[in-house]
Amino acid sequence: MKQADVVILGGLSGITAGISCRRHYPDKKVILIRKEGTVLIPCGIPYIYGTVGGPENNVIPDGLLESNGIELIKGEAVDVDRKSKVVTMKDGETIGYEKLVFATGSVPLIPPIPGIEKENVYPVKKEFDYLSHVYRHMNDVKDLVIIGGGFIGMEFADECRKGRDVNVTIVEALPHCLQIALDNEFCEEAQKKLEEAGVTILVNEKVQAILGDGRVTGVKLASGQELKADMVILGIGAVPNTELAKKTGLELGFRDTIKVDRYMQSYTDPDVYACGDCAEKQSFFDGRPIGIMLASIATSEARIAGANLFSPTHHNCGSISVFSTVINDRAFGVAGLTERTATHMGARIVIGTAEAPDTHPGGMPNSSHTKVKLLFSKDTGVIMGGSMSGGKSVGEMINVVSACIMHRMTADDIVKFQMGTHPALTSSPIVYPIVNAACKVVIPLKGIV
Amino acid sequence: MKQADVVILGGLSGITAGISCRRHYPDKKVILIRKEGTVLIPCGIPYIYGTVGGPENNVIPDGLLESNGIELIKGEAVDVDRKSKVVTMKDGETIGYEKLVFATGSVPLIPPIPGIEKENVYPVKKEFDYLSHVYRHMNDVKDLVIIGGGFIGMEFADECRKGRDVNVTIVEALPHCLQIALDNEFCEEAQKKLEEAGVTILVNEKVQAILGDGRVTGVKLASGQELKADMVILGIGAVPNTELAKKTGLELGFRDTIKVDRYMQSYTDPDVYACGDCAEKQSFFDGRPIGIMLASIATSEARIAGANLFSPTHHNCGSISVFSTVINDRAFGVAGLTERTATHMGARIVIGTAEAPDTHPGGMPNSSHTKVKLLFSKDTGVIMGGSMSGGKSVGEMINVVSACIMHRMTADDIVKFQMGTHPALTSSPIVYPIVNAACKVVIPLKGIV
Repeated sequence: MKQADVVILGGLSGITAGISCRRHYPDKKVILIRKEGTVLIPCGIPYIYGTVGGPENNVIPDGLLESNGIELIKGEAVDVDRKSKVVTMKDGETIGYEKLVFATGSVPLIPPIPGIEKENVYPVKKEFDYLSHVYRHMNDVKDLVIIGGGFIGMEFADECRKGRDVNVTIVEALPHCLQIALDNEFCEEAQKKLEEAGVTILVNEKVQAILGDGRVTGVKLASGQELKADMVILGIGAVPNTELAKKTGLELGFRDTIKVDRYMQSYTDPDVYACGDCAEKQSFFDGRPIGIMLASIATSEARIAGANLFSPTHHNCGSISVFSTVINDRAFGVAGLTERTATHMGARIVIGTAEAPDTHPGGMPNSSHTKVKLLFSKDTGVIMGGSMSGGKSVGEMINVVSACIMHRMTADDIVKFQMGTHPALTSSPIVYPIVNAACKVVIPLKGIV
Repeated sequence: MKQADVVILGGLSGITAGISCRRHYPDKKVILIRKEGTVLIPCGIPYIYGTVGGPENNVIPDGLLESNGIELIKGEAVDVDRKSKVVTMKDGETIGYEKLVFATGSVPLIPPIPGIEKENVYPVKKEFDYLSHVYRHMNDVKDLVIIGGGFIGMEFADECRKGRDVNVTIVEALPHCLQIALDNEFCEEAQKKLEEAGVTILVNEKVQAILGDGRVTGVKLASGQELKADMVILGIGAVPNTELAKKTGLELGFRDTIKVDRYMQSYTDPDVYACGDCAEKQSFFDGRPIGIMLASIATSEARIAGANLFSPTHHNCGSISVFSTVINDRAFGVAGLTERTATHMGARIVIGTAEAPDTHPGGMPNSSHTKVKLLFSKDTGVIMGGSMSGGKSVGEMINVVSACIMHRMTADDIVKFQMGTHPALTSSPIVYPIVNAACKVVIPLKGIV
């Protein structure tokens, strides 16, 4: 039997957990077990079909494991005996551990739509060979239907159209695409950008059946409309991959995620940790469980889990939920609560908005117009969230907002935020929109902060 | 005699101080007095000569004053009687005030080099007509010598070469260009980028004399070398414009800046405030006076000054000093201390560095390689500064570091920083370099944080 100090089960966040563990405990022997021969960059998957040009260009190099002294075992772990602390592989091999980390991620949600099993209907699995197969077929497609207008659906629609003569249609059940993530005005802006790129978006529409004789030929909607389709992509979400965790008796929590505490230690077993999509997450704000799955949260949790394995002291403050996307060259970002989620919580909020070109003067080449919306508590003045759209700088600007949220800065703190500015890189210091959005709530918050 | 609640003297930070005042005190009448007919975006001045294509494209619109209900008086204030609270203009007009703000900025430093007064030798004044004159002459120039390899000098060199058949040479007295701002490795990278663009850089060289008969024909260096020159740009720094402040009896401090407290209130007179280049600045770190002049600091101080005019409560935590530049398409940014400045202070520091492409996968179009260097106190683990180079995202990434510094985050806090990531906008979450640079100091700081 092989023996390691730490055995990690899983992909992306497993790599980060391993690196973090080796950094904190350089003497510990770490083995990473995963089924996949090759691990893909998960957020890069839609880009395989356009900008990046194939799955082979979207791979996380295993060199990262070697250079950090982590042993890789490719294969499927089928059993864990927590009493004797042994993992059993499909081929019968056994590996002993002192500490075990579940980083088993998530698998696509497959809705019970009649005809879902037909040929050329693809849920977005994070598997190299599978996605290569989809890639090869994509070039013959004339009518692509994407079920679900979330991030995955929108990004797939935007990418698949690039360099292809294909009709792309998104079918979204809610009144807006991206509705779970963004406030309405940003949803509408994103939809408009995608429609300008030639994508058809149908909202308030449900798929009733997938048509075709063996191979998909169309999609029937609840409204009665039928769409031609020779390929269907399912982008309606994911569920945690926690079957093995359940089998070994770990307590599952919200939506079948592994129940973990603030140190990422499983509720059930002090020698078992979990991180990433398979682990339960709590909101930074109210501490309640939340269902968000993001690679950035997964790696953040993995760093914490790896650091805590032999001394649980690094505290997870809960998920702020920071993300960004690009739709037809327009970037969108959110950190923390949106107006929608804050209102749903019943929080009394004050909103400040500001707009500015992301260069100064605005006439610089490649200038984009940035729109920023910040939410503050009406009672404490503390920032609760930020949303924005703009050019590429949104990707890091939303991280500035994340840092402000993490430290519970007030509007008054943000008014005094010291940003660096440069003509080609940022808005002018006079109109820097994060600061100016905070300035706008000075009067509504007067007497509070 | 005209009468206002608030009179502001000056340009850029005057606008922001006025807007801030009107936001906090909407009933107050605000008058802005300035000499210049048109105010230029100060950091955009080098870009007039290349990317932006002329001074008329680099103007701060006066509409910003109108829309904020601020009255503009164009003219020169020549006297202030603080006892009777009256400003006298050059044309004899008098304006009474309740609160007065000095936002008079800075003027270029003109070194006592023989021949400095010759024709076609230009200090960088922030005056529209003057810079238009330089712009018109620039197209006839064959040999441009720039004295001083700081930000202004480097940016001028980079911009003036664009679209012109001109030999550009920078003469810098120190061993590196940008040496006051950046650590050596970044100075060297910036110099290399500029040399690749065809600019000649001479370091450890002083200008002994400017040659020519009326009009400049060359520059004589202390080493004996003579450079041909039909235009010389002086970029060796600026001095505060505080003559009027001195004349009216305000106490001046470090390098003749107006002495102000943490509320931006002048030491001498509770009804007089100052902000921007003309006001004394203190370091965020040790609280000592510092000589840095940046538009972003100026506007930050202006927001504080404007908010405090009728109730000094908004506190200036001192200048972190955050800035960025672009040299031949490579961006550089610094927030807080550099290794050089921290070492000079005698601080015991630990350095973490990390590199990563600013997209993921790295093969995305327009991907750049980001280099990040973070400094932490060896005693407390608190971040003291960050430097970076990379693509355009550096402009906002350095602001993420600024937010971390402002809240005195420790390396352990930054390891747990929750950034959003996206393939086209940021580094991969596994290698996000701000976080990974912090991860690198986990062991050196073990037991501290």
